[in-house]
Amino acid sequence: MKIITLLTDFGTQDGYPAIMKGIIWSIAPGTHIADISHEVPPQDVAAGARLLERAAPFFPPGTVHIGVVDPGVGTGRRPIAAQLGQQFFVGPDNGLVTMLLDRTQRQNQAVEVVALDQPRYWLPVVSNTFHGRDIFAPVGAALVNGVSLSSLGSNVVDPQRLDLPGFHRTAQGWRGEVVHIDHFGNLATNLPADVITTSGKVSVHAAGKVIPRLSTTFGEGEPGDLIAVIDSSNLLSIAVVNGNAQECTGAKLGEPVEVIQQPA
Amino acid sequence: MKIITLLTDFGTQDGYPAIMKGIIWSIAPGTHIADISHEVPPQDVAAGARLLERAAPFFPPGTVHIGVVDPGVGTGRRPIAAQLGQQFFVGPDNGLVTMLLDRTQRQNQAVEVVALDQPRYWLPVVSNTFHGRDIFAPVGAALVNGVSLSSLGSNVVDPQRLDLPGFHRTAQGWRGEVVHIDHFGNLATNLPADVITTSGKVSVHAAGKVIPRLSTTFGEGEPGDLIAVIDSSNLLSIAVVNGNAQECTGAKLGEPVEVIQQPA
Amino acid sequence: MKIITLLTDFGTQDGYPAIMKGIIWSIAPGTHIADISHEVPPQDVAAGARLLERAAPFFPPGTVHIGVVDPGVGTGRRPIAAQLGQQFFVGPDNGLVTMLLDRTQRQNQAVEVVALDQPRYWLPVVSNTFHGRDIFAPVGAALVNGVSLSSLGSNVVDPQRLDLPGFHRTAQGWRGEVVHIDHFGNLATNLPADVITTSGKVSVHAAGKVIPRLSTTFGEGEPGDLIAVIDSSNLLSIAVVNGNAQECTGAKLGEPVEVIQQPA
Repeated sequence: MKIITLLTDFGTQDGYPAIMKGIIWSIAPGTHIADISHEVPPQDVAAGARLLERAAPFFPPGTVHIGVVDPGVGTGRRPIAAQLGQQFFVGPDNGLVTMLLDRTQRQNQAVEVVALDQPRYWLPVVSNTFHGRDIFAPVGAALVNGVSLSSLGSNVVDPQRLDLPGFHRTAQGWRGEVVHIDHFGNLATNLPADVITTSGKVSVHAAGKVIPRLSTTFGEGEPGDLIAVIDSSNLLSIAVVNGNAQECTGAKLGEPVEVIQQPA
Repeated sequence: MKIITLLTDFGTQDGYPAIMKGIIWSIAPGTHIADISHEVPPQDVAAGARLLERAAPFFPPGTVHIGVVDPGVGTGRRPIAAQLGQQFFVGPDNGLVTMLLDRTQRQNQAVEVVALDQPRYWLPVVSNTFHGRDIFAPVGAALVNGVSLSSLGSNVVDPQRLDLPGFHRTAQGWRGEVVHIDHFGNLATNLPADVITTSGKVSVHAAGKVIPRLSTTFGEGEPGDLIAVIDSSNLLSIAVVNGNAQECTGAKLGEPVEVIQQPA
Repeated sequence: MKIITLLTDFGTQDGYPAIMKGIIWSIAPGTHIADISHEVPPQDVAAGARLLERAAPFFPPGTVHIGVVDPGVGTGRRPIAAQLGQQFFVGPDNGLVTMLLDRTQRQNQAVEVVALDQPRYWLPVVSNTFHGRDIFAPVGAALVNGVSLSSLGSNVVDPQRLDLPGFHRTAQGWRGEVVHIDHFGNLATNLPADVITTSGKVSVHAAGKVIPRLSTTFGEGEPGDLIAVIDSSNLLSIAVVNGNAQECTGAKLGEPVEVIQQPA
């Protein structure tokens, strides 16, 4: 089964993702295509990197992920393709693949990256403004057809990486920040579950609010309660039961979040 | 042909539906997947139940509908799967399947419901926050692969049902309410076509407006006219020709709508 | 490989496109379906015609494009199907296919249009309000199954065409207008690249602003610069580097755009 996913900042109104699907099916008939998201905020490479890393691991081996958040299209930035363990990425070399690269390397899986320099795998005419259509879709289709990475370009050892905000030890616990706000208004942080000791008392401090404990799920508590949970990506998340934590707290991306842990 | 549909309140920005597709294709390769809607208002189980019942009957026998509007995820609510005539439903036992159940039973088709209690058909690790990924997607994939309902769980006879607003006989006709407002601003009511006598004079009263007759379609009248039509789900609907009835009338969900019928 | 695309003004919240997919799969199992857009502004046939013409050419031969922007549904307007070179269109005869027809004829490819009048290819019951479901989806499925155009209806020689805004020679260059504003806020005009002489000095004048040259891509310049580029459809487009030209200029659809050319 041939699978390609698409992640872009194109929106869904203008038909740009459909154009990529038309190209893919012209080259790799029968491919099943899933849209991860086309609502990455325009030009926000870091947001795209996060979404890609959240979704990609749930796809089968052999899946090709085409990511196009590409403010540098038509300038000097390289187009790349990468093998990440048993999956593939195609897109601009601007850091969009950073978190997926990091995850693959943390899991000691093989990583291979090439700079796309073989125009015979591209559309015959390449515009300066839509490499998703002219380079990335046809290269993704070639990969899903079984073309080898080494046929598509020359090895590179220095793919661009984003400098993403980290989290830090404090005297009483950990300090991170809000890195994603989802459709429900849940505030996802960059604090991973495995650093938070759940023995003893844990409180979460953000946007002037104190949440005195960790809940186990979004529906635990009364409607309207501000709660903290470990979300499905194993990150600390702040939510409102049956409500919207963004609206309730006014928090924005980058909002500091502190976890205070007291021994049992 | 394997077909799965998805109906959720996840939105399309965060990649949650794509994650479910990755799981489905990992278990049931080649499945064709249609998104019914991911824009059910957050936690609005009744709205999800309505959309599911409007769309599901147009899919072929064997289709598996996965519905995830699930404010109780990770709490005590049961996960269920159901056979409804020749189709299947997978989702939380919170009433999301109410209208589809009712329709199936009105048509004297067989209904069978099981509570999902066989973790071998789930992902190995089940989170408290995303059963769409961890339970419902893999169970839907198992069903579309031909696994029997009885392998997935134990029979239940009391699936949750919503108490949805009804419509009532009045001295002069019928009284119902607005139950869905669509993308065009059309106000769909819960008044079915078959109770409205079209012999004689029929007028529709809502939001302080009187519509003196039934039109046959949305384009009948002058642009800007407020009209009443039987919509494609055989429900009375209030619309504006080439316009938006919600904006024009200020009506909200639950707005009372009265039909007055005078014999010919 | 069977491919159908859908272009509508239905939005994605109400499940209407999914209903069409259910019908298609009931008649033509295994068809791959791409959504071009469901966010055509309600009843805006011209906007739909533009999107269709931008996307359709990138699909393989044999693709069936179903377009439903149909304010006249249920009135006297004809339903049609057309063969346009090696692709097909199905939808209302209201001009939605105008630009695709024009393109096909400019390329000297064969065009054949029929008025759909063979109800055996429709759903058994046809509503007055949803021909996308009752006529266009089943006819599209028949076409992708290989049913001939002549089986579906009677030849017509006068399909409706829209009177779309043109562009004009001026003393110093060309005058056109903004015809599409995309998700990024880019202002696409109807001025084709091939009329713009790039030898000599070219300036672009719109919304009270002067852009003194053509850039080659969206990322050329400093963030915030207002620039003019040839877009991926070979049309002159006005953009802001890493920003939103619509917000920056306040321009609307129909905004005049003038190109002034001075010989080198």
